[in-house]
Amino acid sequence: MKYNFLDDYSEGVHPEILRYITDHNDGQQLGYGHDAYCALAAHRITEAFGVPGADVHFLPNGTITNVTGLAAMLKPFEGVISPSTGHINVHEAGALEATGHKIIWVDSPDGKLTPDLIDEALSRYHDEHTVVPRAVYLTQPTELGTAYTKAELTEVVADAKRKGLLVYVDGARLPMALAVPALDLTPKEFGALGLDMFYVGGTKNGGLYGEALVITNPDLKPNFRHHMKQRGALMAKGRFMGLQFARLFDSDNLWLSLGDNANRQATRLHAGLQELGVKFDVEPVTNQLFPIMPDPLVKRLSEDFGFFEWQPLDDGHTMIRLVCSWATTSSHVDDFVAAVRSALALT
Amino acid sequence: MKYNFLDDYSEGVHPEILRYITDHNDGQQLGYGHDAYCALAAHRITEAFGVPGADVHFLPNGTITNVTGLAAMLKPFEGVISPSTGHINVHEAGALEATGHKIIWVDSPDGKLTPDLIDEALSRYHDEHTVVPRAVYLTQPTELGTAYTKAELTEVVADAKRKGLLVYVDGARLPMALAVPALDLTPKEFGALGLDMFYVGGTKNGGLYGEALVITNPDLKPNFRHHMKQRGALMAKGRFMGLQFARLFDSDNLWLSLGDNANRQATRLHAGLQELGVKFDVEPVTNQLFPIMPDPLVKRLSEDFGFFEWQPLDDGHTMIRLVCSWATTSSHVDDFVAAVRSALALT
Amino acid sequence: MKYNFLDDYSEGVHPEILRYITDHNDGQQLGYGHDAYCALAAHRITEAFGVPGADVHFLPNGTITNVTGLAAMLKPFEGVISPSTGHINVHEAGALEATGHKIIWVDSPDGKLTPDLIDEALSRYHDEHTVVPRAVYLTQPTELGTAYTKAELTEVVADAKRKGLLVYVDGARLPMALAVPALDLTPKEFGALGLDMFYVGGTKNGGLYGEALVITNPDLKPNFRHHMKQRGALMAKGRFMGLQFARLFDSDNLWLSLGDNANRQATRLHAGLQELGVKFDVEPVTNQLFPIMPDPLVKRLSEDFGFFEWQPLDDGHTMIRLVCSWATTSSHVDDFVAAVRSALALT
Amino acid sequence: MKYNFLDDYSEGVHPEILRYITDHNDGQQLGYGHDAYCALAAHRITEAFGVPGADVHFLPNGTITNVTGLAAMLKPFEGVISPSTGHINVHEAGALEATGHKIIWVDSPDGKLTPDLIDEALSRYHDEHTVVPRAVYLTQPTELGTAYTKAELTEVVADAKRKGLLVYVDGARLPMALAVPALDLTPKEFGALGLDMFYVGGTKNGGLYGEALVITNPDLKPNFRHHMKQRGALMAKGRFMGLQFARLFDSDNLWLSLGDNANRQATRLHAGLQELGVKFDVEPVTNQLFPIMPDPLVKRLSEDFGFFEWQPLDDGHTMIRLVCSWATTSSHVDDFVAAVRSALALT
Repeated sequence: MKYNFLDDYSEGVHPEILRYITDHNDGQQLGYGHDAYCALAAHRITEAFGVPGADVHFLPNGTITNVTGLAAMLKPFEGVISPSTGHINVHEAGALEATGHKIIWVDSPDGKLTPDLIDEALSRYHDEHTVVPRAVYLTQPTELGTAYTKAELTEVVADAKRKGLLVYVDGARLPMALAVPALDLTPKEFGALGLDMFYVGGTKNGGLYGEALVITNPDLKPNFRHHMKQRGALMAKGRFMGLQFARLFDSDNLWLSLGDNANRQATRLHAGLQELGVKFDVEPVTNQLFPIMPDPLVKRLSEDFGFFEWQPLDDGHTMIRLVCSWATTSSHVDDFVAAVRSALALT
Repeated sequence: MKYNFLDDYSEGVHPEILRYITDHNDGQQLGYGHDAYCALAAHRITEAFGVPGADVHFLPNGTITNVTGLAAMLKPFEGVISPSTGHINVHEAGALEATGHKIIWVDSPDGKLTPDLIDEALSRYHDEHTVVPRAVYLTQPTELGTAYTKAELTEVVADAKRKGLLVYVDGARLPMALAVPALDLTPKEFGALGLDMFYVGGTKNGGLYGEALVITNPDLKPNFRHHMKQRGALMAKGRFMGLQFARLFDSDNLWLSLGDNANRQATRLHAGLQELGVKFDVEPVTNQLFPIMPDPLVKRLSEDFGFFEWQPLDDGHTMIRLVCSWATTSSHVDDFVAAVRSALALT
Repeated sequence: MKYNFLDDYSEGVHPEILRYITDHNDGQQLGYGHDAYCALAAHRITEAFGVPGADVHFLPNGTITNVTGLAAMLKPFEGVISPSTGHINVHEAGALEATGHKIIWVDSPDGKLTPDLIDEALSRYHDEHTVVPRAVYLTQPTELGTAYTKAELTEVVADAKRKGLLVYVDGARLPMALAVPALDLTPKEFGALGLDMFYVGGTKNGGLYGEALVITNPDLKPNFRHHMKQRGALMAKGRFMGLQFARLFDSDNLWLSLGDNANRQATRLHAGLQELGVKFDVEPVTNQLFPIMPDPLVKRLSEDFGFFEWQPLDDGHTMIRLVCSWATTSSHVDDFVAAVRSALALT
Repeated sequence: MKYNFLDDYSEGVHPEILRYITDHNDGQQLGYGHDAYCALAAHRITEAFGVPGADVHFLPNGTITNVTGLAAMLKPFEGVISPSTGHINVHEAGALEATGHKIIWVDSPDGKLTPDLIDEALSRYHDEHTVVPRAVYLTQPTELGTAYTKAELTEVVADAKRKGLLVYVDGARLPMALAVPALDLTPKEFGALGLDMFYVGGTKNGGLYGEALVITNPDLKPNFRHHMKQRGALMAKGRFMGLQFARLFDSDNLWLSLGDNANRQATRLHAGLQELGVKFDVEPVTNQLFPIMPDPLVKRLSEDFGFFEWQPLDDGHTMIRLVCSWATTSSHVDDFVAAVRSALALT
């Protein structure tokens, strides 16, 4: 196989991060996140987002971060509003429900929530016989590769807060969203939105493992480490997550430049495919593309490249998912476009 | 207020049932359902449905019956497919999710599941990152007052079983469905469908409290009383539920005649309203009607009658819910129709 | 069998309660506890305990009351301290754990908690790696038939509150405890203890089913009906529990006189057995006796009487449990004592 | 501070493991444990334990491994028997209870289970009102630093299986136990015991993070990855856990030599302290020591060394915990012993 566009976690760890770990591996550090590197990483993260009083915790993966964070927000009878395509709703094997909470999902063609969709969710739940919607789950960028503009995100966050809802943002790929110039959203503007909790992902942005959860709502801070411990999210050697994020958020803003590379290569890939007449259902914004291709072409490409067959369509076409990452190079992209070109020339 | 069409549990207990309890109140009986009356009622129920080997348990209400029955069917990562309007999905305050399981709901305009809707649900969940759909939740009649015909129910049950799914039927109002001649479905035919579990309601059909859960799938029988105890569904004085169901399923088939009365009065009410030009969104089949009325008429009627304002519509109309019960009489119905007639005459 | 001393729920319902239900069966009442009888019963209960601002809810049985009440007090990582013999710890099939909470049990020979035992429990749990003890579960009288005196209960409640713990009292047999003159504890004194939540049982004191949960802590009142609905504890025809408790707490204090009968017959039984030389491990205070008898005597008695073989002892003796109830008469007791006497005479 | 004997996870990662990761960081691998390194590590682990057909999964930490493994063994009403000092019982913040299961704990002075203690646990739970004990949780070595000999472990495992219980071994420090010559237990003998599930720890034995769970019981294998995903235990970049364990289980048996170093240094430390007259409550076997020291000595030592004050004793003494690790050297130990010697000389 020439190259795999399956996802953004098939690559190893970015060399700079590995070097930083190697350089700071010696010596003892307190366990369970009480080490100097977690403190340093937390400081750099609160600086980057302009949220000086926030608590920052490091958890091993996205699912456990979502579950620990959201469940800590909710009383037993409360639920969380999510787009139907939300990661918690479709790709976490019922992890949130396993903590006892309902996901109140609403259909959203582009994976985003809006004030109207929140209203639709609220309209279904109104008395003591129903779950109480208490929080809103957003993903930036979404699972469909789209992303909220600054205006859209500002509006939906303000709307949710007006309606008494807490706001949680799943930022597994937040670095990609914040690296898109067209979205016009800086990290500090993102931090100033008044989110109650959000996380910024390391796993999909060059790290070994681990996500950084930021809690800005003071009511949600106490005892959060108890929640983490109970959900199995408290890592004994937290120092290694601290080291990864300390490096990602160092003064060269590695976290944003890695996101930027993923986006740029996706943009190049998109342009190349569009030039060849390939159609896209959703206009790509970050590092995920969903081109629609004739089934024979999909079959041909799958001999040389890895990608996910996202959804079979009715008319002999399939929507596939192509993901670029911090490690994708121009030649990977060029190879794929060339392969499409020559396959189309054969037909 | 003249009369309340709010629901079918605003009335007391049917006099025959109360008499039966009074007549058999003396003396001691073993606790927790090990009494003679539970045995008698179980026997009569298995006879009525033609399921001689089935286990029958008595639980205090519908929500706890659904939760105990469904959770006992599922491994932690498994979910249950339900119409979006299913009682477990909207009117049980997240009770099933509180046991850790996802409800996989699909939109159904008439509240019924079909093979196509099951396919839609299955298509969303296919690998280790998703919940595994394991069971199907049907309501007969549905929460919208519609009901499966024999052909429809046979088809959807056979389809679900072919797809490896367990089938659970919520029969809170099952007596009403089985009392509708047009559905062409006898209790024995219902029992022969091959359902894995179903319950027949007492609360909404003249009882004090309690539902009878019938387990026909032998794999689901062992330790079911442990599940009941753990969910708080095992009643110390089970004898009183045994007595109610022994009387309901006595040779005069009181359970069916009470359902029949509820249906008949609803049919009369429907005819009377239709004659006055009132529109219905869903064609009523059992004892629940959902007429659409102008808001001023709704307001006028609410001064003298109780009913639930189900859904505000866009154009100055409201869909209301009118429920007839085992205790509704012809004069209750006539009063309501007369009130509509005179209100319409005023406008 | 002559008579069954197995428990206090083998009898039917007290005739006065059944009459009251029959007299108030006609007519419609709002569902789900919004009826006039629940309101009346709640009023009478708050009067009896001198807690005018308390919320009163009616739930179908003891296990679901314990689970709903305690789980509503606790955050996910919090646990409840209980004597090892506590009903929640040994006889509810893990119902509280099924809501996600740990029971922190301490060994107590007489079934009571003390400040020292609370300290022992607290000493085990002290950092973010452990459950946080948040509430104390007491039973009055205990599962061993013992009961807290006014002084004991006052001390342990004050101690728990000083330590920042919430206090919950399981009163499945509270009427028996409050009917014991020697305990010197009136209902109003009980109500003035500052408990956060307690329930008074109907099932074991002459009712059909149902327990009355009293919430005095204002922080625990909001949304409690959501908790009830989610746990399956909200009964559609709540009126029948309202009727039972309205009658029990009517001006003749039926609830206390039924408890008093159970106690008196147990005292007579105790005196009769003691006169015959039968030993008791725990000194009985209310309506449960735990005599120790030689195995052949136990075998002989079990031919004519029902009772629970509580615990086999090492030396050919067995501790049995004898329970008197509101329905036990002097002749039931005399028969049993006579049977013991004649069996002993044979040996 | 000179050196920290707090635990075995304060150190970084062993240089050989870090080098192995660095050497195999390039290139793409399938996500979620489908990579070549997880396969290699799994192969080496099954070889080492002589369990060729076993499934091996890699999870990020011990708590989530215990929770995922044990919860997958249990039906909702089933519980697990554990010594009171078991990690799941006291140091996981109620994580297992959060999945709905009761921990049935029994007091064990040395942290081990025995057939008698299993009987004691079983005797408490016997009918439908109680939890059903279904599994046994053992730790090798225990949380108190003791360890089962081959004979003890063989006996308790056989006894549990005879009683119909599943057996789970928490091996967070299994390498230390298997490296103790006196225990006479080889990895292959351990593998041949017939355990249903066990894990071998990486975090406490030189790794960055991650534990290897081995499932030998074929009934527990299906859908285990669904359980992992739902509990948040499925890591996207599983390759890095695969790499760590592939190196630990390489032909030089690094996993055992690291455990051996931890044990040896603990033995030296024990000998040095004993020579100075320090007493020990439990005789140490592996890498954890629990010396009892006068409080002034504890205070003096804490100025230069890190350790955990395990338990205050009544008479002005404190039991402390000293842990040696793969990284502890002879000079660390000598420094500590010298510090004790000079402190004692001062008094």
